[in-house]
Amino acid sequence: MQKFRIFDGDVTSARGFKASGVYAGIKKKIKSDMTIIYSDVLANAAAVFTKNKVCAAPVVISKEHVKNGKIQAVVVNSGNANACTGDVGLKDATTMAEKTAKVLNIQKEDVIVSSTGVIGVTMPMENVTKGIELAAEVLNYEGGQQAAEAILTTDTCKKHIGVEIEIDGKKVTIGGIAKGSGMIHPNMATMLGIITTDVNIDGAFLNELLQETTKDTYNMITVDGDTSTNDMVCVLANGMAENKEMNKNHNEVEKFTEAFKYVNEYLAKSIVFDGEGATKFIEVEVVNSLTKDDARFAIKSVLTSNLVKTAFFGEDGNWGRIVAAVGYSEANFDVEKTDVYLKSNGGTVKIFEQGQGAVYEEADVAKILKYKEIQVLIDFNLGKEKAIGWGCDLSYDYVKINGSYRS
Amino acid sequence: MQKFRIFDGDVTSARGFKASGVYAGIKKKIKSDMTIIYSDVLANAAAVFTKNKVCAAPVVISKEHVKNGKIQAVVVNSGNANACTGDVGLKDATTMAEKTAKVLNIQKEDVIVSSTGVIGVTMPMENVTKGIELAAEVLNYEGGQQAAEAILTTDTCKKHIGVEIEIDGKKVTIGGIAKGSGMIHPNMATMLGIITTDVNIDGAFLNELLQETTKDTYNMITVDGDTSTNDMVCVLANGMAENKEMNKNHNEVEKFTEAFKYVNEYLAKSIVFDGEGATKFIEVEVVNSLTKDDARFAIKSVLTSNLVKTAFFGEDGNWGRIVAAVGYSEANFDVEKTDVYLKSNGGTVKIFEQGQGAVYEEADVAKILKYKEIQVLIDFNLGKEKAIGWGCDLSYDYVKINGSYRS
Repeated sequence: MQKFRIFDGDVTSARGFKASGVYAGIKKKIKSDMTIIYSDVLANAAAVFTKNKVCAAPVVISKEHVKNGKIQAVVVNSGNANACTGDVGLKDATTMAEKTAKVLNIQKEDVIVSSTGVIGVTMPMENVTKGIELAAEVLNYEGGQQAAEAILTTDTCKKHIGVEIEIDGKKVTIGGIAKGSGMIHPNMATMLGIITTDVNIDGAFLNELLQETTKDTYNMITVDGDTSTNDMVCVLANGMAENKEMNKNHNEVEKFTEAFKYVNEYLAKSIVFDGEGATKFIEVEVVNSLTKDDARFAIKSVLTSNLVKTAFFGEDGNWGRIVAAVGYSEANFDVEKTDVYLKSNGGTVKIFEQGQGAVYEEADVAKILKYKEIQVLIDFNLGKEKAIGWGCDLSYDYVKINGSYRS
Repeated sequence: MQKFRIFDGDVTSARGFKASGVYAGIKKKIKSDMTIIYSDVLANAAAVFTKNKVCAAPVVISKEHVKNGKIQAVVVNSGNANACTGDVGLKDATTMAEKTAKVLNIQKEDVIVSSTGVIGVTMPMENVTKGIELAAEVLNYEGGQQAAEAILTTDTCKKHIGVEIEIDGKKVTIGGIAKGSGMIHPNMATMLGIITTDVNIDGAFLNELLQETTKDTYNMITVDGDTSTNDMVCVLANGMAENKEMNKNHNEVEKFTEAFKYVNEYLAKSIVFDGEGATKFIEVEVVNSLTKDDARFAIKSVLTSNLVKTAFFGEDGNWGRIVAAVGYSEANFDVEKTDVYLKSNGGTVKIFEQGQGAVYEEADVAKILKYKEIQVLIDFNLGKEKAIGWGCDLSYDYVKINGSYRS
């Protein structure tokens, strides 16, 4: 049973957070493209960034700003990624932080800057600075949905969630928004998540928690294996729930951790689910592995294999491709001990057993694969660890969309 | 200028090698599916095998047999990969070596066994043993083309090559055959290369040479990033050219190495070129990298990126995707120093310069991308190393073929 209430929340669900979304004129179409998320008080903050060596200017700046673990505002524009823009790009990202700090009367080091959109084009800074002014003017405690809208590029829907828990008898809220254009327009530098919470939490613990949670959520989704130049997830915790400081020794730490993980997993999965071109959503779980990393390596290899992805598109229960993908991953396992199951609302079938194809009816597999959401369960029968990840199939539409896309 | 003569050769071009190809009844269609390649004398030999942890039974057996560096015969069947077949598979692969040794009157430890075809089905051993008898009966000094034919699964053409060089005033011949179904039927466990030469060569040096050459040839082709359970390349050198023993101190070692590399590169590229579904052949070269591995990492990342592959399919000169793929590879490089060029018979255009998009005419890029063979040149401007690799685009047909394929 879940120990938390899930609701239709966002980044202004927690106490003391304002947000807004406005049209600054960065996108060609008149759709909101500038947002500020603001905490009434300086918040403990943590962030994870893309590991791509080609990272965008705002990533460089934001990494610096979040180092001391304190942030009060996040400014995000969509429509332009400010990536591969050289020294001009760095100057522009700095200007965004400075401008935001000025209009909010805070320090520029307490601002996270994020940009998402087309790569390789310099920012229209006149529009950007005007947009920041406008966004600051209309900041409000119900602005979360506008923020969720303004960070999108070619997503087909907003991604947002809220959960509520009780800690030390106090109501604690965690809300988040995300954007991920999935496989649709991957030139739009791609994944972004912003979480706000009113929990009172130790800064170092918050950072640890985000790093750990990211491994199990955002890092376990894959649409096409490509890592963007702009990926970022950040969390701001402003302490206004007035619980006793949350840390690893708090007696309700598990409850909080679970709720926090739920928010991030929900947002991560919503990115995969928004991948146009995808006709199937594939969940891969590895159980009884020696280490958690073994499970993660195997899952990622299966989810990124074009052969596995096309097999699911073709509703083909091809265990040879699944097992081969596990085999060339870095995972330690013994194929002679490995079982593989396919599952969906259409049933469960063991398709691979102890190193060989299992005995099963093709019709039963066909029935399972007709469903849109399919699970692959891989049992290593070796240890006690496990992991889970999410991806999608590879369809004609993926090729069409990505083959004909022009930035 | 090449120091060697290239001709339409194969595994019986070098002195003292016989081969044959017959129909044993392993394939459903009546097409040859069994071959023996035999050296009149015990040959120095080396082999490289798949790194997939799920490897086929014949790979397990052959690894053992090649350990002492001596091989006299290679037996290969197509139509069945003998992979994921458990203890029965191991027994069957052993039986193939024993049977081949018996009919040729040699030691079973001097036989390499290889199987290629469908995964997860046990071998029809009655047909297999009869096929080995028949193949041995018809062994002949002109059988190389029959061998080239008999190792194919769903390839659309035979892959074979010969080169001739003079070493110590003696004529030395190197010939090879390969199979690789490219992206067509990747359930057919996939890549196989067999090289024969009459050169007199030190065994340890031969092994070193094959390992090194593989890194620059077979390991630098990618069709979909998946590694098969059965991949193998082996070389037999029987010494009948009577040159002074070739080793790293031989005064003509470079000439031999070049010729050997040419044979392997030719066969490797012929596998990529036989990928149905592919409409473009992409050569990626990285120059001026700090290490050769940096260049290789970057090349593989670009060639396996679905975003890059679909962009080429769509004739879109999308430098953002190329640069991002380099960025998330393990390569050490500095994007601010990096230049990227697109080249084909349609011209050359620098599309990325020192961390930013270069200034160029879209029409010039469009002209380049209309051609079937396209080169991407990435200049790291950092060091003195370089590498080169080959791949193809990702097309509708790839999805169609792999989505509808049933083993």
